[in-house]
Amino acid sequence: MAQKIFLKHGNDKETVRLFPLGGIGNVTKNMYVYEYCIDGQIVDILIVDCGIGFPDEAMYGVDLVIPDVTYLLNKKEKIRGLILTHGHDDHIGALPYVLPRLPHFPIYGTKLTAAFAQLKLKEFGVNSQIREITTSDTISLGKFSIKSAHVTHSIPDAANFIIKTPIGVFYHGSDFKFDLTPIDGFPSELGKIAAAGEAGVLCTLSDSLGSERSGYTLSERVIENTLEEELRNCGGKFLFTTQSSNISRIQQAINVGLRHHRKIAFLGRSMEQNTEVARKLKYLNFPDEMLIHDKQLLRYQDNQLFLIVAGSQGQADSGLFRIARGEHKYVKIREGDVVVLSADPIPGNENAVHALVDTLTQAGARVSYSEVLEGLHVSGHGSQQDLRLMLSLTKPKYILPIGGTYRHMIAYKKLAMSMGYSKDQILIPEEGQIMEFSQTSHPRLVERIETDQIMVDGLGVGDVGEIVLRDRKTLAKEGIMVIVVPVEESTGRITSTPDIISRGFVYMKESGKLVDQVKRVVVQSLKPHKAGISDWHFIRRTIEEQVGKFLFKETGRRPLVVPVVVEV
Amino acid sequence: MAQKIFLKHGNDKETVRLFPLGGIGNVTKNMYVYEYCIDGQIVDILIVDCGIGFPDEAMYGVDLVIPDVTYLLNKKEKIRGLILTHGHDDHIGALPYVLPRLPHFPIYGTKLTAAFAQLKLKEFGVNSQIREITTSDTISLGKFSIKSAHVTHSIPDAANFIIKTPIGVFYHGSDFKFDLTPIDGFPSELGKIAAAGEAGVLCTLSDSLGSERSGYTLSERVIENTLEEELRNCGGKFLFTTQSSNISRIQQAINVGLRHHRKIAFLGRSMEQNTEVARKLKYLNFPDEMLIHDKQLLRYQDNQLFLIVAGSQGQADSGLFRIARGEHKYVKIREGDVVVLSADPIPGNENAVHALVDTLTQAGARVSYSEVLEGLHVSGHGSQQDLRLMLSLTKPKYILPIGGTYRHMIAYKKLAMSMGYSKDQILIPEEGQIMEFSQTSHPRLVERIETDQIMVDGLGVGDVGEIVLRDRKTLAKEGIMVIVVPVEESTGRITSTPDIISRGFVYMKESGKLVDQVKRVVVQSLKPHKAGISDWHFIRRTIEEQVGKFLFKETGRRPLVVPVVVEV
Repeated sequence: MAQKIFLKHGNDKETVRLFPLGGIGNVTKNMYVYEYCIDGQIVDILIVDCGIGFPDEAMYGVDLVIPDVTYLLNKKEKIRGLILTHGHDDHIGALPYVLPRLPHFPIYGTKLTAAFAQLKLKEFGVNSQIREITTSDTISLGKFSIKSAHVTHSIPDAANFIIKTPIGVFYHGSDFKFDLTPIDGFPSELGKIAAAGEAGVLCTLSDSLGSERSGYTLSERVIENTLEEELRNCGGKFLFTTQSSNISRIQQAINVGLRHHRKIAFLGRSMEQNTEVARKLKYLNFPDEMLIHDKQLLRYQDNQLFLIVAGSQGQADSGLFRIARGEHKYVKIREGDVVVLSADPIPGNENAVHALVDTLTQAGARVSYSEVLEGLHVSGHGSQQDLRLMLSLTKPKYILPIGGTYRHMIAYKKLAMSMGYSKDQILIPEEGQIMEFSQTSHPRLVERIETDQIMVDGLGVGDVGEIVLRDRKTLAKEGIMVIVVPVEESTGRITSTPDIISRGFVYMKESGKLVDQVKRVVVQSLKPHKAGISDWHFIRRTIEEQVGKFLFKETGRRPLVVPVVVEV
Repeated sequence: MAQKIFLKHGNDKETVRLFPLGGIGNVTKNMYVYEYCIDGQIVDILIVDCGIGFPDEAMYGVDLVIPDVTYLLNKKEKIRGLILTHGHDDHIGALPYVLPRLPHFPIYGTKLTAAFAQLKLKEFGVNSQIREITTSDTISLGKFSIKSAHVTHSIPDAANFIIKTPIGVFYHGSDFKFDLTPIDGFPSELGKIAAAGEAGVLCTLSDSLGSERSGYTLSERVIENTLEEELRNCGGKFLFTTQSSNISRIQQAINVGLRHHRKIAFLGRSMEQNTEVARKLKYLNFPDEMLIHDKQLLRYQDNQLFLIVAGSQGQADSGLFRIARGEHKYVKIREGDVVVLSADPIPGNENAVHALVDTLTQAGARVSYSEVLEGLHVSGHGSQQDLRLMLSLTKPKYILPIGGTYRHMIAYKKLAMSMGYSKDQILIPEEGQIMEFSQTSHPRLVERIETDQIMVDGLGVGDVGEIVLRDRKTLAKEGIMVIVVPVEESTGRITSTPDIISRGFVYMKESGKLVDQVKRVVVQSLKPHKAGISDWHFIRRTIEEQVGKFLFKETGRRPLVVPVVVEV
């Protein structure tokens, strides 16, 4: 239900057009485009973030999803730069896929954000440099003038952006919460945000993911007490997992470990990589001599070890699940070990995380997870009270909820309306709609752009589409039966019994009778045309129909039936 | 980690052996076997429940899972009867699959349980009669003497069983909570349960699903106030969904609807069937004239309608999702409609339920669901305080936590130990292990039985196994490529270019170059054998290897490669 109210045509000379390339109502795959236009002609383009999305259940075999930048391709030369809000994959992860399709332009991020983005580019061999900005810098990109405001989130060095344009200021309020007692001692820059509000904000884009949660989001600091308590009751190894980008939480874990004189080890690729970067940049601090590597683990007693392990989402190939299954080279779970899962499952991962808990428990560990212990995880996203505070500080004329699905945007709208905002001040665009702002008129929804789901599967980017996915769905649920029909080229007559190959349908070795029946159905279905047909297409369709019908009657299943006519 | 403590060999003449056929650590697929033995020889077998399980994510295309009754087949004549605790599918749903493989024996259930089970059997054309028992009956089955104790749960007429055997009493405490203010006015029979405890219980099997939750489970009654409040703020249609077996909750919804003089309609097959049965048996009560059928809906104003719809788990083909997508013949969502989801997502269904909320919201409805409103759902399973009360009432010598996964069993064990039970009084057997009880010795874990996952897919029961699932997994993620190689029968030489058929791998129409390359790889890989080979198996393996390697290099994917050699 789009707001149908932005119909009035603006006749302003200057406009700013704003839209997400990652789709409306998306938590991940963040990529926003700001266009400064004169007389409807694009003059400058600014891009904010470039993140990956995660495949939904229907995207069989897809590794990840990236924003669709097709729209930008024929206006490449207008792009003045790209700014990154923070170092999470859903904000920087698509850079290696997207940058090679676009010309070189400056890319900015705060210290840690730039380092994480650079790591990502290096991994893919993409040769772009991320420029480091501090919170006092002002970046000028065409007619856009940008200041960052530091905000607290579940990764250090996160920023919101105050984007000044010729028609007004946009507050780009990507992922944030107001942690008033942050671990790194660097609270959100409330003064700067408030000053922007005082000076006048045309539109605030606000994180809306926490809009269903009442109250405010707890400070990250609560975790340390919980960990302290857990470690005190641990006589064996202590294993800790969280998302590997959550540097503040990892720092807290380390603090606890060090207090108990345990050696620290990082296990799992993402955990090792991220902590190495964060350590180099001093976002993670502890004495060198306390860090040990996996090969050294066996030299220590269990109760001297504090292991920080990747795999908080129950990923089957993660370090933690390999440990749980007894497949890790240096770490075996023993009675007395404690495993602390300090992360909530991302929706869809609940069963995987529960399987991890079960496997660890069966291996003998005591496992602490959110269902049995409070204070193990706090969100990085603001709850209703944080979101209200952001609106109170920025006092925008218009509001665009971002970073949530449709239901979060609607909950956010309700919250904003409870603060006195009217319906038409809150923008809930439809998929692909561009919002046009000007100095004097109401924002209006103008042209629609088409954005596709660009899926990455293995090395392929965008070569998996609807047809392939539809086939995979059928293959996943029902399997396939290939029928090879040898046909005499000149007459179209079957020369011998068809060959049947089936995978994922029934166990062939035990289905001899069914296979024989199918062969009969094939021969039978071509009988009316005994004289022979040369229309292979017709033959294929007939076989497909007849065999499909027969198999459904016999088995209640509808495998893909693929007839192959071989001319002999 | 099984308890390794039950090693002492009993030398008692009489024993009772107990084990689940649905597997240890299962929430669903409930089926328990009690065997009374003399000198190790089975004399009488009693079965409790016969439910379906739900496929996990790795069981591609599987509709449901049933208990493996192979063990029973060669001792059929010892089965004295089957008793059903309550009418949920995971306790009665496998009857139509299992009964045809076993001889006729008496089957018992309370009124509503019997009716729901009978409905299930009728649907499958299975000709068995369920005998109705009341709470004052005693059933004698061989040496087993059984009384039921009514307990409250999320379906009326739920029962626990007090099973008297020659060696002691088993309290079969299947799914329950202690709702002290139940909707149907029929509270749990605490007196009867306590009396059993006073007389002495050898072993209590207890629901453990809620063992992670502190406190006690709220009464079902809290729902009605929430609904009243929601309906008061609804100017359009009111749509309510919950699990269709939750008759008490449906009664509460109806109460609210009637107070506001709205007509009641049931939509969706399971909802219509279950409510019809419950109405006939007077478990659901309201004036006939208030019920309307879907075809009559259009005769009423939106604000006269109270629709009770199936689909609370976000099932794509359910009534509610069809309404959300605008595909329902008689119900279209309009601005002003309110949809209330009165059920928590079963783990794994979270994303489906969220998609339902998003789709309904986008269609214009205001949706109430657990993230935004409390008091919409209460569990049917007891929390820690309920579980403690059950132990306090039955005061068993031994305890077997059931109805939960491994982590629930461990949480239950912790709870029981906090009440003074010792480790070896709490039985946590390994998969397939039989627990043997006797009058004088400790229960011991005796022989292991093998139980398989029996999967139902379409009309097939048990014909989908590991191999088919493994293929489906590959097909789902990577697709398939079939390579038809025409070979001269006598010489083994390729006679013409191979045919390539691929589904779910890449979009063939746009992959001409890749296909050509594959053809070359096939021809090339057989070159060293230009003289011809007659070992088709060898040819197939070579092609599979070479093409697989090539495709992975080119695409990073590993589709199933299936070479078909056609002799010409």
